Amino acid sequence: MISRVLAADLPAHVGEQVGIAGWLHRRRELKSVTFLIIRDRSGLAQAVLYPHPSRSGPPAAGLPEETVVAVTGAVTASAQAPGGVELTQPRVTALSGPAEPPPFDLYRPAVTAGLPTILDHAPATLRHPVLRSGFEIAAASVAGFRAALDGLGFTEVHTPKIVESATESGANVFGLDYFGRPAYLAQSPQFYKQALVGVFERVFEVGPAFRAEPHDTARHLAEYTSLDAELGFIADHHDVMAVLRDTVAGMAAGVAERAAPALDRLELSPPAVPEQIPRIHFADAQELIAARAGWDPRGEPDLAPADERWLGDWARREHGSEFLFVTGYPMVKRPFYTHPDPGRPGYSNSFDLLFRGLELVTGGQRLHRHGDYLAALAARGEDPRAYAGYLQVFRHGMPPHGGFAIGLERWTARLTGADNVRQVTLFPRDRHRLSP
Amino acid sequence: MISRVLAADLPAHVGEQVGIAGWLHRRRELKSVTFLIIRDRSGLAQAVLYPHPSRSGPPAAGLPEETVVAVTGAVTASAQAPGGVELTQPRVTALSGPAEPPPFDLYRPAVTAGLPTILDHAPATLRHPVLRSGFEIAAASVAGFRAALDGLGFTEVHTPKIVESATESGANVFGLDYFGRPAYLAQSPQFYKQALVGVFERVFEVGPAFRAEPHDTARHLAEYTSLDAELGFIADHHDVMAVLRDTVAGMAAGVAERAAPALDRLELSPPAVPEQIPRIHFADAQELIAARAGWDPRGEPDLAPADERWLGDWARREHGSEFLFVTGYPMVKRPFYTHPDPGRPGYSNSFDLLFRGLELVTGGQRLHRHGDYLAALAARGEDPRAYAGYLQVFRHGMPPHGGFAIGLERWTARLTGADNVRQVTLFPRDRHRLSP
Repeated sequence: MISRVLAADLPAHVGEQVGIAGWLHRRRELKSVTFLIIRDRSGLAQAVLYPHPSRSGPPAAGLPEETVVAVTGAVTASAQAPGGVELTQPRVTALSGPAEPPPFDLYRPAVTAGLPTILDHAPATLRHPVLRSGFEIAAASVAGFRAALDGLGFTEVHTPKIVESATESGANVFGLDYFGRPAYLAQSPQFYKQALVGVFERVFEVGPAFRAEPHDTARHLAEYTSLDAELGFIADHHDVMAVLRDTVAGMAAGVAERAAPALDRLELSPPAVPEQIPRIHFADAQELIAARAGWDPRGEPDLAPADERWLGDWARREHGSEFLFVTGYPMVKRPFYTHPDPGRPGYSNSFDLLFRGLELVTGGQRLHRHGDYLAALAARGEDPRAYAGYLQVFRHGMPPHGGFAIGLERWTARLTGADNVRQVTLFPRDRHRLSP
Repeated sequence: MISRVLAADLPAHVGEQVGIAGWLHRRRELKSVTFLIIRDRSGLAQAVLYPHPSRSGPPAAGLPEETVVAVTGAVTASAQAPGGVELTQPRVTALSGPAEPPPFDLYRPAVTAGLPTILDHAPATLRHPVLRSGFEIAAASVAGFRAALDGLGFTEVHTPKIVESATESGANVFGLDYFGRPAYLAQSPQFYKQALVGVFERVFEVGPAFRAEPHDTARHLAEYTSLDAELGFIADHHDVMAVLRDTVAGMAAGVAERAAPALDRLELSPPAVPEQIPRIHFADAQELIAARAGWDPRGEPDLAPADERWLGDWARREHGSEFLFVTGYPMVKRPFYTHPDPGRPGYSNSFDLLFRGLELVTGGQRLHRHGDYLAALAARGEDPRAYAGYLQVFRHGMPPHGGFAIGLERWTARLTGADNVRQVTLFPRDRHRLSP
């Protein structure tokens, strides 16, 4: 390994001669002195060059920003330097040829470039500390997701993304040529995670999901990272919601513990997840809105964005919570595998989790009896033969079960306040974008 | 949650009235007594029914195996029962309709069914404790992979699986229709993990990789789970090998810590990973084989399987190690982005890690200078324009870097002694198999 101390660790080495390595983040030339700011994965470090070459080693002042450099020098306390230390009498070595300038100055605190520029040049622009932060938060969130489910006895699985038929619906599915016959990219691991409840009882998967999404909006991607969980031996969807609450709390804790520098850079704190997330039934939510919001959503089979925003405000006001469960969505708006509410015809054992007035997670109890699947498909006029492989699972003894799916990019966008999921997707895919 | 105690926890509840839930693993009817063995995610539990209905609750003796049941009863010490306890005076409730029989008896310790039967009925057959074990080991391995890299400052990333062009080679790539234009499924995250070294220095990814693999062998899959890592600021490939050694040790530790019941069921222990894995240069390995193996591989640009087996035996004999690094493979057998050995023309800064005489991991140092990429492509007669997006990364200052990729299914197969990777793939995909 190139012998080096990380920028963040320099304060522990005052008085020592050390080496650092990273990218030349900024070169600031003053009359009598040049400051080099070196960026590495831990943060920024400053080196001070004086114009007299004998004190500065080979000429380094002319290197363009983003050149990869190794710098040796004496760690010297300096109140004005980042972290309170700087490297003095540095010797600078370029590790790769001089770099081409990135499309905008990565050292400026604010990013003023437009999204297309950022995305077209992602390998360079993601280096900006602010743009990188969302991905540090995403990685910490996924670590928290796994840690929470791991602690609850879940097994991680990897299920195929090339599938024989579209699970959820025939629309918006990518087709491919699979050794001369048609196949599809999985829109979700729904079928597999349910089947694997029969094997492991509790499973989770972190993997890509694919939607040939014709919409060109700020929240749709053709490929996204889905955080899926499914568990058996539930009484109903409230047991799934209890696991989801602990999972979301684990994700928030993961962010707090593992992405503190990113939170600082973005001036954010992770959300507080209440011990009990308040919950309201879909029908009660509509009544409440009708009575107090100034419009009447009753009769609609789903909540409009304005309804969700109003409920988000209501939950904050009445319950001091940024999270709200809405339960019991009408069956007509849920997939065929949704378990109905046995006590309330037309409604389902399903839920959405709203975060700051936006839908963050969808989940619910699924049907688990073979006969119920046949009836559900018949009621929708669907041919059970198209689901033969899926249905087979329910002939072999499946416990009552349910689960949920969290879109990683949407979660990260909500947390960071990004107004477009593409800002928190390393290399987004949409109708118009297939590279880099 | 359905109130329950897990089978493995029953011994702590002797004398109590408890509920368990799971699958009716086996029903064993003797003259005066019927034993029900209940399987849950933690193991097996036994319930004892006497024929007199007043002592046994509703008739449960007729339920077929794999029916999902909840059982309440008194936890009673019993030396002959699994775990030393059994449920007496049980009341049995079926939670789903009677199950169809699986294609073979899941309660028999040995699996005698053929692979096609196992794979065709995977949602049922994977419930067999022996067949399930490989996936518990796989999950534990992945957890160990992440924990090791996490401890070394790596950031987890998720990169696109739909790509504009084939990264590694034009062959064996799945094409798809991407909103009316051609696109491909990524054969590896090679391009992205290199680009992200420029952002995070050290990255890893766990995700699917796709190969339109025409071979129909015991070790090829059309879709597999790739454990990828890449790191910057290396001196050469030996730094990558040091990280790989710690990663493999972390995977073995993960298996030991998290998959002990699966190891027990398969009568396995995790491999010992030496602090220093022995290493031998490709050319020296050929010399050694020529001198001592009874055949002469010199002049071949790669190691044949027989060579690898011989070297595996040699490493065990001479170094007491099941692992062996072979370094410096000839450039002609490595991809164009491979870094040559500056001191030894024709050889590369690359390595394979052999485990028990079989290649387990491939990796090495990559080129990091833009000009070197242009020269490497020219030397192979390739058009740099086909790699424009990839090459752009190296204009922006890339440190010396390298990495490796571990195929999860191959790793698990080696660990469990499975002679076909399909045995350790939940739902394998190959030339002939696209379901379940």
